[in-house]
Amino acid sequence: MDRIPILKLRDLLLVTIQVDMHDRLAMQLQDELTTRISETGARGVLIDISSLDIVDSFIGRMIANIAAMARVLDAQTVVVGMQPAVAITLVELGLTLPGVRTALNVDKGMMLLESGDGRAPTEMERDADGTH
Amino acid sequence: MDRIPILKLRDLLLVTIQVDMHDRLAMQLQDELTTRISETGARGVLIDISSLDIVDSFIGRMIANIAAMARVLDAQTVVVGMQPAVAITLVELGLTLPGVRTALNVDKGMMLLESGDGRAPTEMERDADGTH
Repeated sequence: MDRIPILKLRDLLLVTIQVDMHDRLAMQLQDELTTRISETGARGVLIDISSLDIVDSFIGRMIANIAAMARVLDAQTVVVGMQPAVAITLVELGLTLPGVRTALNVDKGMMLLESGDGRAPTEMERDADGTH
Repeated sequence: MDRIPILKLRDLLLVTIQVDMHDRLAMQLQDELTTRISETGARGVLIDISSLDIVDSFIGRMIANIAAMARVLDAQTVVVGMQPAVAITLVELGLTLPGVRTALNVDKGMMLLESGDGRAPTEMERDADGTH
């Protein structure tokens, strides 16, 4: 059952992370997600981490990688549902989620992606990355 | 991390089952889901089982229970993302999901719930159950 489902919600993809991530699972998720983005032409990816009590550097790097891959495929990434304690720990550990927007919950994340607000700063980042 | 997140999508709730269910987790999910339905006034519950390779009688009963509880709270339940092999096994084992609609994927499940098509037969079932 070690497979993280990727759900299509209109032109967005939703990933809910519930299980302990490990290297193979993270690789598999990245593979499947990029395939699904190109298949469906999704404009946004929502990553729900409301089940996670801890976001360590491994998870942080995975999310940043997914966001970078999605951006190259012209999709924006929004992390939703972060627990307050996780936000505190992230800041205390000095971890950042580069290139990733956050929203309080899935509804707000969808609104952010649909309004296009998720796009503007990322365009600038894209220029800065030189991928555009 | 043993907690199944319940995501709110407008007036629907989405539950993605990824982990092995056991008694305590199933009870906890039922508790949280009924609380969320009454808090949010959600009209529908989508249960995504695309990660499940097996739906046994325990999972089947849990889904049927959730559907029954949701129905009493005036919300319809749709199971989405069932793998073909799971459908075959369900029929071969003679298991049914009483009172539960199914849809191929989340998009179609949302359409089913939003169109109101998910309601008509359930009204009749509700009359038959005597809860209405």
